[in-house]
Amino acid sequence: MPDEFTVTPWEVKGKVDYDKLIIQFGTQKITEELKHKIKNLTGGELHVMLRRNIFFSHRDLDLVIEDYEKGKGFFLYTGRAPSLGMHIGHLIPFIFTKWLQDKFKVNVYIEVTDDEKFLRNQEYTLDQTRSWAYDNILDIIAVGFDPDRTFIFQDTEYIRNMYPIAIKIAKKLTFSEIRATFGLEMSSNIGIIFYPALQIAPTMFEKKRCLIPAGIDQDPYWRLQRDIAESLGYYKAAQIHSKFLPPLTGPEGKMSSSNPETAIYLSDDPKTVEKKIMKYAFSGGQPTIELHRKYGGNPEIDVAFQWLYYFFEEDDNKIKKIEEDYRSGKMLTGELKQILIEKLNDFLEEHRRKREEAKELVHVFKYDGKLASEMWQKVHE
Amino acid sequence: MPDEFTVTPWEVKGKVDYDKLIIQFGTQKITEELKHKIKNLTGGELHVMLRRNIFFSHRDLDLVIEDYEKGKGFFLYTGRAPSLGMHIGHLIPFIFTKWLQDKFKVNVYIEVTDDEKFLRNQEYTLDQTRSWAYDNILDIIAVGFDPDRTFIFQDTEYIRNMYPIAIKIAKKLTFSEIRATFGLEMSSNIGIIFYPALQIAPTMFEKKRCLIPAGIDQDPYWRLQRDIAESLGYYKAAQIHSKFLPPLTGPEGKMSSSNPETAIYLSDDPKTVEKKIMKYAFSGGQPTIELHRKYGGNPEIDVAFQWLYYFFEEDDNKIKKIEEDYRSGKMLTGELKQILIEKLNDFLEEHRRKREEAKELVHVFKYDGKLASEMWQKVHE
Repeated sequence: MPDEFTVTPWEVKGKVDYDKLIIQFGTQKITEELKHKIKNLTGGELHVMLRRNIFFSHRDLDLVIEDYEKGKGFFLYTGRAPSLGMHIGHLIPFIFTKWLQDKFKVNVYIEVTDDEKFLRNQEYTLDQTRSWAYDNILDIIAVGFDPDRTFIFQDTEYIRNMYPIAIKIAKKLTFSEIRATFGLEMSSNIGIIFYPALQIAPTMFEKKRCLIPAGIDQDPYWRLQRDIAESLGYYKAAQIHSKFLPPLTGPEGKMSSSNPETAIYLSDDPKTVEKKIMKYAFSGGQPTIELHRKYGGNPEIDVAFQWLYYFFEEDDNKIKKIEEDYRSGKMLTGELKQILIEKLNDFLEEHRRKREEAKELVHVFKYDGKLASEMWQKVHE
Repeated sequence: MPDEFTVTPWEVKGKVDYDKLIIQFGTQKITEELKHKIKNLTGGELHVMLRRNIFFSHRDLDLVIEDYEKGKGFFLYTGRAPSLGMHIGHLIPFIFTKWLQDKFKVNVYIEVTDDEKFLRNQEYTLDQTRSWAYDNILDIIAVGFDPDRTFIFQDTEYIRNMYPIAIKIAKKLTFSEIRATFGLEMSSNIGIIFYPALQIAPTMFEKKRCLIPAGIDQDPYWRLQRDIAESLGYYKAAQIHSKFLPPLTGPEGKMSSSNPETAIYLSDDPKTVEKKIMKYAFSGGQPTIELHRKYGGNPEIDVAFQWLYYFFEEDDNKIKKIEEDYRSGKMLTGELKQILIEKLNDFLEEHRRKREEAKELVHVFKYDGKLASEMWQKVHE
């Protein structure tokens, strides 16, 4: 009996089988050989999310690496649909993108889709989504991007420079195609129908290959992009896809802003973090200490372990030790959770410190920085 | 047996019955009483196109006049989908709009839809539609608008300031509605599906009533606008609708840029004008001079007469005399055509002189003039 799961840009349900997803979506597994190649180019270092296959799938990453080796270069693009408060799962593509920028010294474009969020939700006002955009941009800047090589832009502002290329893209996409790809209806509004053109536009900001680190749920946008890019004189966008950090409440689906108990927010204070992890984090341990000592825990389904593995314990020896101790029953669920709570709170404290500093940098990333000011001079055709 | 005719924004076919159209579209006839009221406000003068019912139908024109009388004011909005060369029919809304501006001293917004033209026609490039936009703007400026009170803008440039209000509009319009209203298909591209939001946006440039002089074929856009305007805190747009200047080739349909023999272009030289009128202008005269002298001509179907009546012979006494002489057989078709040729060539010569001068004014109307520079400072919400 196969596990049932769904992965679309608007819904992730069930326990995702990532190997199946590679076949379903027609992407490629990131091979050990490709990782080895990247490792050689990044001074022998491989990001923990690559080492542990959190970024597990790709399209044309090999060609991006080839272009880099040949001196042709490439650029990075990722984005965010603004929400009232980001949770830690939202940081995964940004943290990884920042690492790639550090290692390859390339430009990063970050699209903040205040229009999409407004258009997709009947109840949100544009004032709301724009204030969330400001707020989320602080969290994004806090990740540590290079202010000379990073441009963060909101659709409702940068549309001015993107509209020409966006309508060239739009002219090549029919309602039928968009409808099938994004689950739209005859009753969908005409703004959200046009929106995919704006998500695709930044892949054509430079005449180089574009590499997009993003959750694999965003893949349908890039399939459309790849169908039309070359006819417009641009490269098919390359992607590197991440898995979903499992929600606190269990290994299925993805963290959701609408269910606060499934996620840790970047604004959660230490007490809240402790309470949420202790109360909600789905455990792979046994019902009693005695049974746990005897049979051990199951790290594969234990969310505290998964979060340490995906994100918070970068040291390979330490994570191996934790896994062994938990599996053997030597480490109790409570102890495991304590490790995560401590790591999480250290991370969040540091994040919030950088977030405060980010307030002075918003103008640099959006308007005045080296790349940003160049971009405001350009019209994309 | 009723005459068959079709009037939509993308097609005008058959001999249009304008009284029926008023019923079909649910608009109102411009009454003698309303004309009288306007005449009193404009110093006793009524534009020839109002006197002769070329502008024949309206929505809320009475409310616009009331607002004006109360000192609330109003503004004018019209537009143009750029084409390779404008013909004289294209000038009708502009000439009339200019007259209203002169009389009421109000702002005029003119949208040049370089995006729409590009998106609607598979074969056109954006470079083409933008160069036609520049070209058409010269013809529009030549009509003589007030540079302090007129803003001419192209969608691909002014989108920056219009996008926020456009997505608020877009969010209220579903694909189903747009499809029915504009004859779109599942295979229509997502750019042209979004476009109506941009045609509606300028009706919300001021918190006053907007009056739109335009061909009645554009009415479906304004019906949509009227459905949603108040929910966004704006007025329902008022319209004043014109008939179609009949094509040279006969009283049916509307002049078409794709059939050059149906129209006189603003660039047609005197010889070309003469040749076209003599060769193509559909005549209401009799087959021979003898029969014409005996039975007389029919001005109702004679295109040369209609053009004089709609546009080129403003003197009511003179047009009456021409009509009588033609109907009685005293005036021959060739003589009637000569009158039109002379009037047309005088008009075109003067137009082209003003068009040359317009080259120095493009920046004023688009960017630097009083209203234009104010508009570039605004973001429409």
